[in-house]
Amino acid sequence: MRVLSGMRPTGKLHIGNLIVLDNWITLQNSGNKTFFFVADWHMLTTGYENVSNLSEFTTTLVREYLAAGLNPEKSTIFVQSAIKEHAELYLLLSMIVPLGRLERVPTYKEQLRELKERNISTLGFLGYPVLQAADILMYNADGVPVSEDQAFHLELTREIVRRFNSLYGRTFKEPKTLLTPKLLGTDGRKMSKSYGNTINIDTNTREMEKMIMPMKTDPARKRRTDPGTPEKCNVWNYHLSFGTSKEKLDEIRHGCTHATIGCVDCKRILLESMKRRLEPIWEKIEYFKTHPKDVKDVIFEGNKRARVAAQETMKKVKSAVNLVH
Amino acid sequence: MRVLSGMRPTGKLHIGNLIVLDNWITLQNSGNKTFFFVADWHMLTTGYENVSNLSEFTTTLVREYLAAGLNPEKSTIFVQSAIKEHAELYLLLSMIVPLGRLERVPTYKEQLRELKERNISTLGFLGYPVLQAADILMYNADGVPVSEDQAFHLELTREIVRRFNSLYGRTFKEPKTLLTPKLLGTDGRKMSKSYGNTINIDTNTREMEKMIMPMKTDPARKRRTDPGTPEKCNVWNYHLSFGTSKEKLDEIRHGCTHATIGCVDCKRILLESMKRRLEPIWEKIEYFKTHPKDVKDVIFEGNKRARVAAQETMKKVKSAVNLVH
Repeated sequence: MRVLSGMRPTGKLHIGNLIVLDNWITLQNSGNKTFFFVADWHMLTTGYENVSNLSEFTTTLVREYLAAGLNPEKSTIFVQSAIKEHAELYLLLSMIVPLGRLERVPTYKEQLRELKERNISTLGFLGYPVLQAADILMYNADGVPVSEDQAFHLELTREIVRRFNSLYGRTFKEPKTLLTPKLLGTDGRKMSKSYGNTINIDTNTREMEKMIMPMKTDPARKRRTDPGTPEKCNVWNYHLSFGTSKEKLDEIRHGCTHATIGCVDCKRILLESMKRRLEPIWEKIEYFKTHPKDVKDVIFEGNKRARVAAQETMKKVKSAVNLVH
Repeated sequence: MRVLSGMRPTGKLHIGNLIVLDNWITLQNSGNKTFFFVADWHMLTTGYENVSNLSEFTTTLVREYLAAGLNPEKSTIFVQSAIKEHAELYLLLSMIVPLGRLERVPTYKEQLRELKERNISTLGFLGYPVLQAADILMYNADGVPVSEDQAFHLELTREIVRRFNSLYGRTFKEPKTLLTPKLLGTDGRKMSKSYGNTINIDTNTREMEKMIMPMKTDPARKRRTDPGTPEKCNVWNYHLSFGTSKEKLDEIRHGCTHATIGCVDCKRILLESMKRRLEPIWEKIEYFKTHPKDVKDVIFEGNKRARVAAQETMKKVKSAVNLVH
């Protein structure tokens, strides 16, 4: 299967992103042809007013991709804005996408509302799902790992495929949605930097403790002697996401449901799991910080490979649309 | 001065286009750095549903550009879709252009109304003036020859320049509008293929006669004995556009104002002027039809030169927006 996904260079990855990356890495390591990119053009759709960190954050993101386990031998890791064919395909697709369809994209109105302090009522922001479609179709992806709130964009991509194929002959295939698991914020709401409920993957142990210890648990456990239900507890989800061992999980489940351990004990175990999971990543981040050329080389090689694939697709597309000069 | 303009590959040029081309050629031959392109992507904004002739019409247009007098030694003649940097710049500019501004472009609503049998309420059609801005800014044009109904698009281009420069530092300069003269259709309305009031530049003499002889003249000349006013007569404009000699013009003016020649005589003189003007073009069109490689080479060389200029611009632009990977 061909797989493509990307993240925006917003600064540092948080543990919610890490869960998504784990999913990518599983796909990468199970024989798929994987493409992972830094969505810097996507970033501009909402962040065009402040681009001062854009280039630095792109480097940071690739560094953290690598530290988390993306492997440039197995995956094509590239920067979106380095492959101008994406813009070319975006332009061509934009010709056949009805405006009304874009105005009805749920995330469109939602984000206009949420980010109303920014001036994002722009052509680029409206066209964002079409750019995403171009990203996906460029690499002929069979599957696209996305979170639930992006699933609608993939539905639009499939519509664009059908419209393009019916106008210009069969050129693209419809990509499947691969839903990625989602971690809630430490306060139980959607994880978001603006809510202050995220933990960056390079957060030190002390800061991590400050975020984890106050986490709300199953509301039934008002006192230590009240039994709880792990499935109703956000901390339990964190345990599952951070690879707490089967043995420890059994111990926690028994302790929670029989009120023999407290939530504080449970969180201490979680902190241990998180530390065990994150420490190797911290080390790799440090390594890449002192070896910037390694990161640069990965980007250079990835861009080169992505460009070859993109040019192949555009050759087919341009011939389908009869643009051959 | 750097000058850029383009036409859509709609099939054959008509005499209205020829007047525009005359203006381009004057600019070309007076020491300017001129870029003239085939706007095939523009064509898609309203014609994406029928692309079967797109490639052929592009060749036809370049052939007629050359036949009319564009000189590839002096002008860079290229095909828009061959320079993917235009799409790249379009994407970047689209990030900073407010939707409301595009919805207020006069030609937007007008064309939605006029072409309502086509489904052009698309993202690409809405974005068309931004693509035009990208075309212009790509070559740092100081002046852009456009007809009056396109002048508003250039105003938008200047607004985009100001917005871009204020966000990312001085990168572009504001292009000036160079208004091109306009020839009315043979029925006195706006010249348009859909009105059937145009004459293709390769029309033979007999067909030309059929279009010219019934042309309305100054309404004051009801009878041959009624004197007329050349300035009130569309045929007079045609004389001016087709290079009727000063001597003949004086003769016509005197004959018209004194009712000593009839409109039929006047039109016969016009037909002579048109034939004299068009015959060398017909010959050149025939030449290029039998020498397709000449046309191909012009496009190839023009694209190459345009691409170099475009890549230079994009280097500056990407550095301004901090997209440097």
